[in-house]
Amino acid sequence: MYKTKAYSAASATSSLASISIPRRDSTDRDVQIEILFCGVCHSDLHYARDEWHDVMPTVYPCVPGHEIVGRVTKTGSAVSKFKEGDLVGIGCLVDSDHTCPNCRAGLQQFCPNQVLTYGSPDKHRTAPVTYGGYSESIVVDESFVLRIPVNLSLAGAAPLLCAGITTYSPMRHWGVTKGKKVGVVGLGGLGHMGVKFAHAFGAHTVVFTTSPNKKEDALRLGADEVVVSRNADAMQKQAGSFDFILDCVAAEHDINAYINLLTRDGNITLVGAPEKPLPVSAFSLIMGRRSLSGSPIGGIPETQEMLDFCGQHNITADVEVIPIQKINEAYERMVRSDVKYRFSIDMASLKAE
Amino acid sequence: MYKTKAYSAASATSSLASISIPRRDSTDRDVQIEILFCGVCHSDLHYARDEWHDVMPTVYPCVPGHEIVGRVTKTGSAVSKFKEGDLVGIGCLVDSDHTCPNCRAGLQQFCPNQVLTYGSPDKHRTAPVTYGGYSESIVVDESFVLRIPVNLSLAGAAPLLCAGITTYSPMRHWGVTKGKKVGVVGLGGLGHMGVKFAHAFGAHTVVFTTSPNKKEDALRLGADEVVVSRNADAMQKQAGSFDFILDCVAAEHDINAYINLLTRDGNITLVGAPEKPLPVSAFSLIMGRRSLSGSPIGGIPETQEMLDFCGQHNITADVEVIPIQKINEAYERMVRSDVKYRFSIDMASLKAE
Repeated sequence: MYKTKAYSAASATSSLASISIPRRDSTDRDVQIEILFCGVCHSDLHYARDEWHDVMPTVYPCVPGHEIVGRVTKTGSAVSKFKEGDLVGIGCLVDSDHTCPNCRAGLQQFCPNQVLTYGSPDKHRTAPVTYGGYSESIVVDESFVLRIPVNLSLAGAAPLLCAGITTYSPMRHWGVTKGKKVGVVGLGGLGHMGVKFAHAFGAHTVVFTTSPNKKEDALRLGADEVVVSRNADAMQKQAGSFDFILDCVAAEHDINAYINLLTRDGNITLVGAPEKPLPVSAFSLIMGRRSLSGSPIGGIPETQEMLDFCGQHNITADVEVIPIQKINEAYERMVRSDVKYRFSIDMASLKAE
Repeated sequence: MYKTKAYSAASATSSLASISIPRRDSTDRDVQIEILFCGVCHSDLHYARDEWHDVMPTVYPCVPGHEIVGRVTKTGSAVSKFKEGDLVGIGCLVDSDHTCPNCRAGLQQFCPNQVLTYGSPDKHRTAPVTYGGYSESIVVDESFVLRIPVNLSLAGAAPLLCAGITTYSPMRHWGVTKGKKVGVVGLGGLGHMGVKFAHAFGAHTVVFTTSPNKKEDALRLGADEVVVSRNADAMQKQAGSFDFILDCVAAEHDINAYINLLTRDGNITLVGAPEKPLPVSAFSLIMGRRSLSGSPIGGIPETQEMLDFCGQHNITADVEVIPIQKINEAYERMVRSDVKYRFSIDMASLKAE
């Protein structure tokens, strides 16, 4: 065991502050990583504030962060895929049972025994629960370590590990390709990645937003059209025309307005998770054999595929780089959607502390 | 034009009673059919009572009935598929535009210009709207006429034209085959057909019902297991295990309880249409990449495929045969779900009137 600096919350109402946490000494299969950047995901805030208490009560102190980019500093004797100096990433998972049907299919995101990057019981007993990426270093089984294409900006690559794969995976799953018409609802951390991917896949990409002032930005990100969703006429013009819609809105909203925009056999996938159940009209689903689904992150093979795709197409998140000392302010701004489109923490700021 | 006897409602609050209605003289492409049996669908009642006023206001007098089995009495000069004496069926559609992408794909159920068997504007101007199967005879374009396998009971075959195809189509669409685990929610007119099809496809078939006294019947119809949905423990035991669930319940019910029974990538399809929106938990969909969809009837080619499948497997609906004079009583009993599992009108009773 060794000690490393981290930022943690001590309770649901505490600000995040610097502490020292233990990390395990590398086993044969482990990769030790110096963390260079860590994206700030809405989940980090939910977890730090114990807002998911009913499904996953937070254990304090908690160290959030699951959009990790860093450099390999050490590898265990059995590690074959990575060597010291490699640029690597860690997403939302650091382990799984490796044996269930989902793991065998490379779909670790559905493993019933998955180990989350933060807040899961720590199998290695280094700490009560796993600690995330708001820290100087991390030690992870090589099978959950991903390769970051060297041409990408590291600050912008970090959010690919959660926001990137969360939007990439459902588009691949539901067959978004050239010639399809794709909608992206909500232009935030997830939505702006959705637009970049839909555009890169060659789809005709339409952004739905409540904010007319986001139009220019949406077009810059790759949208072909922007629809202000409060405009009933503009919505009506799009009726029945979408093959796929990615719904990135976590706030309450009228899902039926979007279901009605789907063509026959069209699908709308939720990646934001509104707290309250969404009222869904059966009639809208029946009349076009439409479907409503959800999607979490992706599996490890697909996450690597996504990163490689980003390398080829030079796709990263649009980020505002902050020092770790600004994390509490960043949380407040994130709640107000006051960021274009993701905070990325420069972890050099923690080392210098 | 010629006159034929029919049963119709004169207003939303009238009982159905005998009248005389016009039918067009056959065109070159038409088939004239003597109606032998007509199934009684819940839609008939909704339409007769103008309960779908907002989407499709009823034009009176109205003649319901879209589960029609009969014998060809006359064919137009250009009719190639049928000849006098053939046993044929008519379902929910009697025409469409024949040219839209849906029609070209054989998916007439999604044609924006489809002509319903009853209640649609009558292109031939024989009457203000089309008149359905509660009548002695009907004249239909041959492309909407289906062949009934001669080995099937005609009374039991009639409901295949709506209840049959409505349950067959989504199971085919979502890949129900041998080795899959399939749930059927609600054991009524639709549900009992769903059980027969799931069983015939070789799936492990589980019926969900609120009525413990339906267990024996469900097993007789082909279910491998029966779960009383009010039993939380019994429901919990089925969690995460279904590839596909057919939800045949038109009343309000907890859809999330069933979404949670789906396995990864599982689908639940609504074929009953509850009036009020269903509250759907985004979390349940996201965690297993599950989907909720809807499905109406099927297209003409698939309806013929379903009828042929029924011929091969000797599948018909379980019906209670009634004379047309009992139709008002049958409606009252249908509202109370007091029928196992579909009424089928013997149209000889109308001829004799």
